[in-house]
Amino acid sequence: MNGRELLWPVRVYYEDTDAGGVVYHASHLKYFERARTEWLRALGFEQDRLIREERVVFPVRRLEIDYLKPVRFNEQLTVSTVMTTLSTTRITFTQTLLRPDGETVAAAQVLVVCVDMDTFRPRPIPESILAEINA
Amino acid sequence: MNGRELLWPVRVYYEDTDAGGVVYHASHLKYFERARTEWLRALGFEQDRLIREERVVFPVRRLEIDYLKPVRFNEQLTVSTVMTTLSTTRITFTQTLLRPDGETVAAAQVLVVCVDMDTFRPRPIPESILAEINA
Amino acid sequence: MNGRELLWPVRVYYEDTDAGGVVYHASHLKYFERARTEWLRALGFEQDRLIREERVVFPVRRLEIDYLKPVRFNEQLTVSTVMTTLSTTRITFTQTLLRPDGETVAAAQVLVVCVDMDTFRPRPIPESILAEINA
Amino acid sequence: MNGRELLWPVRVYYEDTDAGGVVYHASHLKYFERARTEWLRALGFEQDRLIREERVVFPVRRLEIDYLKPVRFNEQLTVSTVMTTLSTTRITFTQTLLRPDGETVAAAQVLVVCVDMDTFRPRPIPESILAEINA
Repeated sequence: MNGRELLWPVRVYYEDTDAGGVVYHASHLKYFERARTEWLRALGFEQDRLIREERVVFPVRRLEIDYLKPVRFNEQLTVSTVMTTLSTTRITFTQTLLRPDGETVAAAQVLVVCVDMDTFRPRPIPESILAEINA
Repeated sequence: MNGRELLWPVRVYYEDTDAGGVVYHASHLKYFERARTEWLRALGFEQDRLIREERVVFPVRRLEIDYLKPVRFNEQLTVSTVMTTLSTTRITFTQTLLRPDGETVAAAQVLVVCVDMDTFRPRPIPESILAEINA
Repeated sequence: MNGRELLWPVRVYYEDTDAGGVVYHASHLKYFERARTEWLRALGFEQDRLIREERVVFPVRRLEIDYLKPVRFNEQLTVSTVMTTLSTTRITFTQTLLRPDGETVAAAQVLVVCVDMDTFRPRPIPESILAEINA
Repeated sequence: MNGRELLWPVRVYYEDTDAGGVVYHASHLKYFERARTEWLRALGFEQDRLIREERVVFPVRRLEIDYLKPVRFNEQLTVSTVMTTLSTTRITFTQTLLRPDGETVAAAQVLVVCVDMDTFRPRPIPESILAEINA
């Protein structure tokens, strides 16, 4: 974590690619989710503990993504994750997928909502998380 | 194909779900892509033939998606696919994921670009496809 | 269902393939699991109901698979599923992935175990399922 | 790389799990393939270069896997990869998925074949790779 930005490395394996020879467009969403998980971890929160102790999960409510460049098998990339807005129940992230030379190959806006694990109804983000985000 | 709308059934299997108990947010993109493949097939075009004979593929350039309702394991759903705009090199689709009672559980705008398979540079959509779309 | 064999169609979409130009080796397992789900459904059992009412799931305990032929994007295949052995807590299936001309492109032996959803400990297969299998 | 064993870390993310609350059985194959890719890289070989320069890929020909313990979301695991047999065209690996305390949660035997990228016919493993393996 560097200020409010988390940088997280991802390697492109066969599982991520398709017969077009490039990274399949749904795989980018997996990379971005790994990075959001690591963003929460960098703040000190493990999601399996949040599920057990707070019964909260953070599903994606809305996502916009631009695929700017084809990405190839075996490339080493970095995901940049920055929290851009925060409300009682919602967090928005700007996430980009970057080449080693800094070229942006994909860029996304991702809105996640704090919901109760059992009902999937929105509920306030736990105070402990808000405190850490605002620290 | 019903007018300009294609309805395509999808079943939720274990592969599509995650430990939150619902369909993983990247799986919706797979459902939508299956339906776009079937939309092209309903027009008479097989993508493996398009690759071999025309060297074209249709990667996603931009995608916006709203996840409106959690979807559960074993649900039977329908993807609605409608072409909304068409230019020389690009097609935009409105795609929705529907429950049997008509409830929309996810809605997306998907922009695909016709590119040369080898260079991934945009190129005009083949005439034969345009003719069929405009038929 | 035809005697003890269920035949289930699968289409190869982009999501199933990799940059080698063929179906990714983990995708075969997805095809086989869809077919086992449909085998149970053909016997009259919906797995979401089994989870809710009986608290049982059927995870794979052991799997052997031979990949005999490369499978390409857009192929239309059939999964053949036959139950080969049955005990109090376990079922073994022979599953094959077939081309339209009958050529076997992959063949697997899959052992699933009936477990309690909460503890993942083996437990007897529900009587209602055994009765239907033996009918 | 430690003698002939490569240890490679994997984290369980949402993408790897299913609605049963555990890692989906096809995800283990992805973990094992990442580790085989890293095994080749540790020997000095990048698979994208092998494809471009030698036109070879190493698809899985046969795989046996025992799923010994359910694995949960967010676990940190290690893949152990050991080459067990080597012939002109084939390599067999023993791969295990391990918890931090050394518990084996899955164990596999994986046979890969060196094939020509274009024909998918077996061909001899490149000399440079054999030399490095035997070094």
